[in-house]
Amino acid sequence: MSGVPEFDDMADRAARVALTWLAEPGHRTVWTLVQQAGAAATLERLISGDIPDSRLRAAVKARTAVGDPHRIAEIALRRAERLGARLVVPSDDEWPTRVDDLAGLELDTGGRVNHDIRPPLCFWVRGGWPLDATLERSVAIVGARAASSYGTHVATDMAYALAGREWTVLSGGAFGIDAAAHRGTLAAGGRTVAVLACGVDRPYPVGNSAMFEQIAEQGLVISEWPIGAEPLRHRFLIRNRVIAAATAGTVVVEAAARSGAAQTMNRVLALNRHAMVVPGPVTSAMSVGCHEILRGNPYARLVTSAFDVLEEVGRIGEYLTDPPRGPEHRRDSVDEESALILDALPPRGTSTPEELAAAARLTLRTVLRRLSLLEVAGLVVRREGGIALAPKNTPG
Amino acid sequence: MSGVPEFDDMADRAARVALTWLAEPGHRTVWTLVQQAGAAATLERLISGDIPDSRLRAAVKARTAVGDPHRIAEIALRRAERLGARLVVPSDDEWPTRVDDLAGLELDTGGRVNHDIRPPLCFWVRGGWPLDATLERSVAIVGARAASSYGTHVATDMAYALAGREWTVLSGGAFGIDAAAHRGTLAAGGRTVAVLACGVDRPYPVGNSAMFEQIAEQGLVISEWPIGAEPLRHRFLIRNRVIAAATAGTVVVEAAARSGAAQTMNRVLALNRHAMVVPGPVTSAMSVGCHEILRGNPYARLVTSAFDVLEEVGRIGEYLTDPPRGPEHRRDSVDEESALILDALPPRGTSTPEELAAAARLTLRTVLRRLSLLEVAGLVVRREGGIALAPKNTPG
Repeated sequence: MSGVPEFDDMADRAARVALTWLAEPGHRTVWTLVQQAGAAATLERLISGDIPDSRLRAAVKARTAVGDPHRIAEIALRRAERLGARLVVPSDDEWPTRVDDLAGLELDTGGRVNHDIRPPLCFWVRGGWPLDATLERSVAIVGARAASSYGTHVATDMAYALAGREWTVLSGGAFGIDAAAHRGTLAAGGRTVAVLACGVDRPYPVGNSAMFEQIAEQGLVISEWPIGAEPLRHRFLIRNRVIAAATAGTVVVEAAARSGAAQTMNRVLALNRHAMVVPGPVTSAMSVGCHEILRGNPYARLVTSAFDVLEEVGRIGEYLTDPPRGPEHRRDSVDEESALILDALPPRGTSTPEELAAAARLTLRTVLRRLSLLEVAGLVVRREGGIALAPKNTPG
Repeated sequence: MSGVPEFDDMADRAARVALTWLAEPGHRTVWTLVQQAGAAATLERLISGDIPDSRLRAAVKARTAVGDPHRIAEIALRRAERLGARLVVPSDDEWPTRVDDLAGLELDTGGRVNHDIRPPLCFWVRGGWPLDATLERSVAIVGARAASSYGTHVATDMAYALAGREWTVLSGGAFGIDAAAHRGTLAAGGRTVAVLACGVDRPYPVGNSAMFEQIAEQGLVISEWPIGAEPLRHRFLIRNRVIAAATAGTVVVEAAARSGAAQTMNRVLALNRHAMVVPGPVTSAMSVGCHEILRGNPYARLVTSAFDVLEEVGRIGEYLTDPPRGPEHRRDSVDEESALILDALPPRGTSTPEELAAAARLTLRTVLRRLSLLEVAGLVVRREGGIALAPKNTPG
């Protein structure tokens, strides 16, 4: 049963909007159903109650009791048009494919938000730049709302310098470090992206409204939630996975003890992105969380400046500007260290980075860096038990 | 030709003093000759000019032209007695055997001071505590002379807290971080050791004279150089190897860019001691060197407090208070991780820590920690190509 293509496309868009109203974005079951049957069919199935996941069924029932999803989506799309916001879905050219890496993300934290770690179904976008190109060379700068003047200064400076090197700076639009990162980028005339945990029509916090307007003009304000959605507390954690996935790396500038920053960094690393942390005075409560991460996670990297950040993420960016052509060509063009790592990988099965380091006689840090690059180049893939050669590169 | 034992002992002591006047302490050739033939015979050989090392021969000749080594040693020993300083040599009960690890130290830096990295021939000591027991549970706190108030505060605090846990704090007696470390320990009524690069009769810098007097009363002032020796510039680097070797670990609190701190840390790690670094504001010039080390050396550990320092070195200290009895007993009593590492080591030959991590399926950090412990327990030894089982533990 295939209808008019244009109508199908519009139905798909509206269905995605309705789905993010029925269940939180990133919902594991919803996303899986959409992958299998498409958004429109998934929406009908959810509304009819034909879903094994009882919690999801109950949640959908509670929503449909207060409104008709089709109608809600229609209203949201109309309101967005008036606001100058557009909807971006995976079939659009400007879809930022990097966020699809969330499809393979598995986290072993047992927390309740782990339901909601799958890729977004859609993005609402305010601002003129294409979403994909804007995020291609991007770094996230995040941190405490109750930032110190030290943290604010460092975040502003770093964002300013990154913008000067044509890097997009992502953040969450919050007070403190987030706002400093956005403002530093704006001051440099660069592009910054605010990723919201509510509708793009209701900037949160309200105190940053003027800043959001400027970001929408000079960069992008984006969200997975429909126009009108409220910034509920649990949505910030769901939102954070997009900040981690959409960027080449995340920098934490200040974080209090036992803040969510360590979890953010685990997620960043699980996505094989660069996890970077700015240290501070050991006497400052706002740097305790940063030092906790640096002490607890050997893969988190201490950075002191935009220069250090570029040293981490720079290669990937430069690599992307000159994409390699085919697998054979790719493998021939890799540097010597990468070649050693590729040679050390078994034809079938996986190796851990530690095993590769020992086999290739390289340091663990070198191996981890090269693996990021090799993954971007599509030469290796991340699997359950470790790293494997990408299918195309397997001999025979 | 064996003389009266007591006379032999006195001749050995005087010869060691004379040798440190003829050549700098730690001199590779001199130390090797002393190991082979004893101090008295080495002294006669040096004076007679019967040495293949032409630079050493020239240096000795220049010295003997201005004074008689025997006479110089005699005067130094007499002056020391008046001053209340004593000479400690390897045959003494209070010799701190940990410094003998310098016998195996190899550094790949190509610098000129690498001549002078062998164990001390003797120590001059001011203060009542036995040298070995004082250094058994000890940590070094070192850093910039031009320290900031932040660095001074952190060093003082850390030393105070370590002293409260009965740890001895070593430092170099300089202005800035060194003095703060000594003073923090003194304030806590703890034991601190100033390791000088000149005679113990001439405290350097003079501005710290009163502090040195207090250290000599409450802790120890020690040096390898004879009474009267001047604090020549190159002597500080030679002295630093003793601070690294005599302690369980070294903490760098503040260091300027491209200071000697990174080299110190390489030495600390080459000796398999704990290399610890206190971070600071990235905006502070006095923390640049600290961040350089943390970024450049994956084995250097970020520490924010005495608590963190004790987490690093604590186990060794606790281990030493309850020494295991024999090799069999020792191996049985090791924890599970250590047992995995011992099992992963080849019966003959060596493994690198990276190889052990892969084989034992442990993180590199865990392996490095356990290896320190296993080395202290005498179960493994450090060799040219990596780690090996200690001879007694080799099967058969």
